[in-house]
Amino acid sequence: MAMLIAHLGPTGTYAEQAALAYLNRLKYEEQITLCPYPSIAQTLKAVARGKADVAVVPVENSIEGSVTITLDTLWQLDQLQIQLALVLPITHALLSHAPSLEAINTVYSHPQALAQCQGWLEQFLPTVELIPANSTTEALQHLEQESSAGAISSLRAARIYNLPILARAINDYPDNCTRFWVVGQRSVSRQMSAVKYTHTSVAFSLPANTPGALVKPLQIFAERSINLSRIESRPTKRSLGEYLFFLDLEADANSPLVQSAIAELSTFTEILKLFGSYNVVEVKSDS
Amino acid sequence: MAMLIAHLGPTGTYAEQAALAYLNRLKYEEQITLCPYPSIAQTLKAVARGKADVAVVPVENSIEGSVTITLDTLWQLDQLQIQLALVLPITHALLSHAPSLEAINTVYSHPQALAQCQGWLEQFLPTVELIPANSTTEALQHLEQESSAGAISSLRAARIYNLPILARAINDYPDNCTRFWVVGQRSVSRQMSAVKYTHTSVAFSLPANTPGALVKPLQIFAERSINLSRIESRPTKRSLGEYLFFLDLEADANSPLVQSAIAELSTFTEILKLFGSYNVVEVKSDS
Repeated sequence: MAMLIAHLGPTGTYAEQAALAYLNRLKYEEQITLCPYPSIAQTLKAVARGKADVAVVPVENSIEGSVTITLDTLWQLDQLQIQLALVLPITHALLSHAPSLEAINTVYSHPQALAQCQGWLEQFLPTVELIPANSTTEALQHLEQESSAGAISSLRAARIYNLPILARAINDYPDNCTRFWVVGQRSVSRQMSAVKYTHTSVAFSLPANTPGALVKPLQIFAERSINLSRIESRPTKRSLGEYLFFLDLEADANSPLVQSAIAELSTFTEILKLFGSYNVVEVKSDS
Repeated sequence: MAMLIAHLGPTGTYAEQAALAYLNRLKYEEQITLCPYPSIAQTLKAVARGKADVAVVPVENSIEGSVTITLDTLWQLDQLQIQLALVLPITHALLSHAPSLEAINTVYSHPQALAQCQGWLEQFLPTVELIPANSTTEALQHLEQESSAGAISSLRAARIYNLPILARAINDYPDNCTRFWVVGQRSVSRQMSAVKYTHTSVAFSLPANTPGALVKPLQIFAERSINLSRIESRPTKRSLGEYLFFLDLEADANSPLVQSAIAELSTFTEILKLFGSYNVVEVKSDS
């Protein structure tokens, strides 16, 4: 049976790079097809509705932080489970048909990419207009018609769409990388697996906002020497000042230590969701 | 002397509404001028460089969460202090020259506004193309040329630019509001003031990521029954997995209780920044 991998498209995005890196790791005999979707929410919903087997979605960038739509959609869609995390190095380039930087008056890209290059843009293109796009690839569609336009995208996208590179490695911080999650439908067999995983992700809401309400959940893990590699708050969307908390634990949910922590945690939370255990692999940028 | 209030422009944005609400609260004898800036970072930098007296910047929306550029810029610019928080109700409308919803094929707006109306858009305009803009007002510039385009903006913007309203109150959650901070230069006189404030904002980095590293800072406040109304993590931008933490305390930094908490907190943090104490006022939407 063919396997379908959903990702944010169109072809040439960093999400597609991550999906390809995942595909290359699979020892799968049958056909594997990448399915680009126009938004991250639709990518995850495709898996929830059984239209794709897994989704490869960005969750966090080292410079710009959380990709909040991924967290919010995962909270809403109950039946999903994280299977793997991929860390992809990000190197942005400025693509354009213009002969030189001086000829550029507009730069298109995804808001995260524009933000990751803001120092470079202020230094080398201080007067250009910055225009957001839905993805780094969608930004490229302006280049054919506008010879004074540039787009921030990857070297891989430059190769795919045969576009000239005006400047390379323009991200402000060289250590720029994005973490992706490979998300599939919850499966009992995977939960019972004997494989050991290094990370577990959970999220919860708290019944009341009292002094120290968040201390107790964090103490539960600290007392067991379980390190939290990340804590992120998101609005419940009910009213300003009410939050959900997303935690990444450096431990396997199948270990007795984590199971006792989760059992204790559930006595303090209003809603508690387990997004599964997984390993983290660093993949190479295809550039 | 004229007073200058910086905000994200152009005229018609929600940030301008918040700036006007702030202006109306001032009992100021001299001229007050609003100065629109093309980005939130430039709005805050104008105050840091003495080009404006205060900046009115969005910090958090009840649906979409933190405005991360505000937090990141405040961390970078040392000399700024929060003077007041304003909570503005947000009611989005769809503006367009099209005769009906059926005639719309493209919707422009700021990504936060598009996200806040995604349910309505999926229900009533499932096939339209969603195109991000730098602000809800910038989105309006497409309406003159494209009769099949819509823009999500405020009723106030519809009035200012004399644009037809195709649909009102299209935000998915009726309880949609945005919190703004009024930020000025740090002043000694204000720190010594006898006025009591209800909220204090701080941010810090931690020297090492060990189990329970964040528990101790939170315990310091819990032990003193100081409620945290918000905790937000942001990347340090040094490497994936290293964070800054932004806390809002429901207490005045001048109280002995908070002063002892801050003194103890500083023994656990790497860098600790105090953004000042302030009150929170709810303002009315000008629509």
